[in-house]
Amino acid sequence: MSASFSFAVKERDGRARSGAIATPRGVIRTPAFMPVGTGATVKAMFPEDVAATGADIILGNTYHLMLRPGAERIAKLGGLHKFMHWEKPILTDSGGYQVMSLAKLRKITEEGVTFQSHLDGATVDLTPERAIEVQCLLGSDIQMVLDECTPFPATRDEAKRSLELSMRWAERSKAAFATMSADGQALFGIVQGGVYPDLREQSARALMEIGFPGYAVGGLAVGEGQEAMFDMVELCTAILPEDRPRYLMGVGTPQDMLGAMARGIDMFDCVMPTRSGRHGQAFTWGGRLNLRNACYAEDASPLDAESLCPAAQYERAYLHHLVKSGEMLGAMLISYANVQFYQELMARAREAIAQGRFAAFAEDVNRRYAQEDAD
Amino acid sequence: MSASFSFAVKERDGRARSGAIATPRGVIRTPAFMPVGTGATVKAMFPEDVAATGADIILGNTYHLMLRPGAERIAKLGGLHKFMHWEKPILTDSGGYQVMSLAKLRKITEEGVTFQSHLDGATVDLTPERAIEVQCLLGSDIQMVLDECTPFPATRDEAKRSLELSMRWAERSKAAFATMSADGQALFGIVQGGVYPDLREQSARALMEIGFPGYAVGGLAVGEGQEAMFDMVELCTAILPEDRPRYLMGVGTPQDMLGAMARGIDMFDCVMPTRSGRHGQAFTWGGRLNLRNACYAEDASPLDAESLCPAAQYERAYLHHLVKSGEMLGAMLISYANVQFYQELMARAREAIAQGRFAAFAEDVNRRYAQEDAD
Repeated sequence: MSASFSFAVKERDGRARSGAIATPRGVIRTPAFMPVGTGATVKAMFPEDVAATGADIILGNTYHLMLRPGAERIAKLGGLHKFMHWEKPILTDSGGYQVMSLAKLRKITEEGVTFQSHLDGATVDLTPERAIEVQCLLGSDIQMVLDECTPFPATRDEAKRSLELSMRWAERSKAAFATMSADGQALFGIVQGGVYPDLREQSARALMEIGFPGYAVGGLAVGEGQEAMFDMVELCTAILPEDRPRYLMGVGTPQDMLGAMARGIDMFDCVMPTRSGRHGQAFTWGGRLNLRNACYAEDASPLDAESLCPAAQYERAYLHHLVKSGEMLGAMLISYANVQFYQELMARAREAIAQGRFAAFAEDVNRRYAQEDAD
Repeated sequence: MSASFSFAVKERDGRARSGAIATPRGVIRTPAFMPVGTGATVKAMFPEDVAATGADIILGNTYHLMLRPGAERIAKLGGLHKFMHWEKPILTDSGGYQVMSLAKLRKITEEGVTFQSHLDGATVDLTPERAIEVQCLLGSDIQMVLDECTPFPATRDEAKRSLELSMRWAERSKAAFATMSADGQALFGIVQGGVYPDLREQSARALMEIGFPGYAVGGLAVGEGQEAMFDMVELCTAILPEDRPRYLMGVGTPQDMLGAMARGIDMFDCVMPTRSGRHGQAFTWGGRLNLRNACYAEDASPLDAESLCPAAQYERAYLHHLVKSGEMLGAMLISYANVQFYQELMARAREAIAQGRFAAFAEDVNRRYAQEDAD
């Protein structure tokens, strides 16, 4: 095990790029998709199957884990990797996003945020320092600074005030990380600024001034629409350093990810493949399928003949039956197939970039997914 | 593939016996436990994991499958084995038990039973002939005659009237099976008679008169208590032919199964390992554990160090967290470990019988399970 964190771009195709992030727990091939393991489990999947899909890294949620079972408890049990039987890298968010979306009675001050747990109503303080402490207790390989995820819509003044707070928190996060982290762990900054180009630039430059081994673009895919999102991504990646990985948080659909890759993004996370899997929605090389639809009741074809996933070999009629019956096996199989589809999408994207045909590849996938709303 | 059905007792230890049922789809080692795959899925388990536990056969529920997705639909899709990705033998019940326990507005006549589906209220007729037709459409390897599962408590007159109806239905079931079944499939009779020894004897002799390749003991474990159940089992197995497999339906706990094996039973089915698995109850070689209990919150020991099941290697603290969080992975892991425990119990029982130490083995397991209510 090497004890260092590094990133190298290997191939470029336009602004799209493929590369590798080296960590002590293994290499992350980019563009990378990180399945979301909210509560120390990628929902409805065995960890060995998550690994079998080709995922090099998963994401854990600081907010959820600090509330249940608790960061100190996980540390006592040997850390998050051991706890959840996942040996490869883990990225953790800082908890900021879930505090905004899930917790009650939030109060934000310069110091940090105080909120009530959505589980039991307990009052919890989250500061930049505590967010890093929690992530270090979990043993996270890639950690995120605490930020305020600027809501959408927000006025320019609100967005500016919010990002400036986030930048001060980013600096405090880095200072805390320096004293608490282990060798080979990395801390990423997060660009905020809403849909205001000058604020995005201000945020990106402020973070670069502080200096991070990787940069995320946050506060997008929150209702601003694909065009505005792509504009902000394009603007950020034009400013952010070429030699650092770039992570678009919480995104997304195959089309959103391909568009972001074309604009220089290297990393993604999203609950979509697992959440959709629990609701009978499948991502396949033929497009998105809603397996609840009666048209699949006697469809003896496999879910996705083009996928290498064992779960995708199950017949649509059987999956339809399982979904209609509310059987867990339906969620298990479709989640597995979806996560593998996302990984196969990344693998093919990397290959297309290496072969200089990324635009054609993205166009082909977008065409397959153009009719997703027809279901 | 041999196209015949046969049974051979291999070893005896007191009245306990080990043997093998040969079917065209594979050998079933006895004593055998059949995981229950109610709606074409052993709940929360991948079929390959069910096979990996050592299960030679699973059970499917005629009642559930005829209502959803429908026997004709399963036949059109290639039969139940293909539909649910299970290549080994399947035993199906006749639907009679679930009609009594789940359906609404039942009306029983000499001809059969008419009921309303618990799913959509549709009126459905189930006759002995239709029960066989459904099982043949499913492609079941071991089929069961339609019977009326005599409720408990029942007066002697009620139990007698009920069993006599079941015996007439058994005869009609056999006649229907003779015209519809495929080579190598088998039909079992079911002994009824409540807790009345003379009625149990009357039922067993009536079935033997009709003649079946295997015999089940039904209508037990419905509230009569372990002692009465063992008495009825002992009485039935003393009458039933030595050279035919004997199946105690819907049983049960490890203790109940061991007691029944000691009285000459060869086959079992029960929802307990999977249902308990979904509720955080684990069967282990150390006894039964309720993983919701706070005592497991920081217990870093594996669920069951004595088990060979991959799922049993997960730490109790992690399973506690998953169960408390309502995560599907908790149900998936504990169901897997429980089904494997049941198979390991069968394997050790077969070995103990072969080595003439079954009584000591059963006593040892009973001691491990004596404190199950302490949790």
